Amino acid sequence: SPGRKVLIVYAHQEPKSLNGSLKRVAVEELSKQGCSVTVSDLYTMQFEPRATRNDIVGCLHNSEEFNYGVETWEAYKRGSLSNDVIEEQKKVQEADLLIFQFPLYWFNMPAIMKGWMDRVLVQGFAYDYPGGCYDSGLLKNKLALFSFTTGGSKEMYAKGGVSGDIRYLLWPMQHGIMHFCGVKVLAPHICFAPEYVSEEERKEMLIAWAQRLKTLWKEEPINCSPESYFK
Amino acid sequence: SPGRKVLIVYAHQEPKSLNGSLKRVAVEELSKQGCSVTVSDLYTMQFEPRATRNDIVGCLHNSEEFNYGVETWEAYKRGSLSNDVIEEQKKVQEADLLIFQFPLYWFNMPAIMKGWMDRVLVQGFAYDYPGGCYDSGLLKNKLALFSFTTGGSKEMYAKGGVSGDIRYLLWPMQHGIMHFCGVKVLAPHICFAPEYVSEEERKEMLIAWAQRLKTLWKEEPINCSPESYFK
Repeated sequence: SPGRKVLIVYAHQEPKSLNGSLKRVAVEELSKQGCSVTVSDLYTMQFEPRATRNDIVGCLHNSEEFNYGVETWEAYKRGSLSNDVIEEQKKVQEADLLIFQFPLYWFNMPAIMKGWMDRVLVQGFAYDYPGGCYDSGLLKNKLALFSFTTGGSKEMYAKGGVSGDIRYLLWPMQHGIMHFCGVKVLAPHICFAPEYVSEEERKEMLIAWAQRLKTLWKEEPINCSPESYFK
Repeated sequence: SPGRKVLIVYAHQEPKSLNGSLKRVAVEELSKQGCSVTVSDLYTMQFEPRATRNDIVGCLHNSEEFNYGVETWEAYKRGSLSNDVIEEQKKVQEADLLIFQFPLYWFNMPAIMKGWMDRVLVQGFAYDYPGGCYDSGLLKNKLALFSFTTGGSKEMYAKGGVSGDIRYLLWPMQHGIMHFCGVKVLAPHICFAPEYVSEEERKEMLIAWAQRLKTLWKEEPINCSPESYFK
């Protein structure tokens, strides 16, 4: 792992939160291994989640009818995406591993992180259509890992639970975003209901994450194809 | 249907888009039926998607460690959420039916709409935990419908297709958000790949939507429970 590059995309408002601690643990452990770690702290950056005309510097390809997908694709090719998007794309380009650290909001990532996906992973950069998606996605040879906390308990997110198997809600993130861009996905890292456990158990959650990171580079990606995912 | 109230939450940057037309068709058809229709046009409103401390007016419940869920719950009870959130909650409260109109971004709604979910559907207003969720959600007796356009084709989103059954990606929205709040969900309305079809076919898509809306109030909600959803 020495020399490997890791980008942590982090979305929590409070440094003292468990998400903040999980992020710090990852920076420490991966740095100790000799990895070079970059953090995009979305709330601190006041990252813009809205996909708008402002993402294109200068003239539009078609100013008669604004099409965000087409315009950002064209702007990417011309090198005229807005600076904040270009900065994130550089970080992604250099990374071997992307870690997304966030609290689950509504069976999904918080809007600020969804905006990162919407704005950074533009056509031409992350994928091409139809030829450059899924196993041919433009970000192949990279790994991604979704690390998050939940409000609900492990029992709620079990296969027979009220909220259904947690794999179900990971489908759009793991397959629809990462696999679509050719990124291989490592098993998610989930801390269930940290607000309802003891301080001691929260500490154990941090230790478990540090432990997992020690052997992360030996892990095999999960299979994200539709046939194998829902069975 | 006369007298019924409908809230359309709309997320597209371009009025001339198919999403813009689908929204207008819904306003026209539902108004013609005698419904009272309100539109939240998120991009025009420059709706804030980020869940931050700014959503709470005045002092925090715990300023030592910011917890968005707890703070917005407390602020809701005190009546001290930010005005833009309160406005949206009023619209939701009055509505019999919520229609979400958007282009699918990354197997999901655009970040600006996800931010609407994150910020508007706060604890105490939309649900309580653990007693007031799913069939006991606080927004029961309301209906919701996800109406959206896709980039990928119907074949890609079929059960054996590369992107998997489109029902899979609707799970977090339909079950994780709407059903969690007690809202009953009508079948989604999906326009597949409008950018790849003829102008004639796009017109037919608008006609089909208007047609469906004529008998919408007679429709039965779909079953969103985990056991029935994935089979």
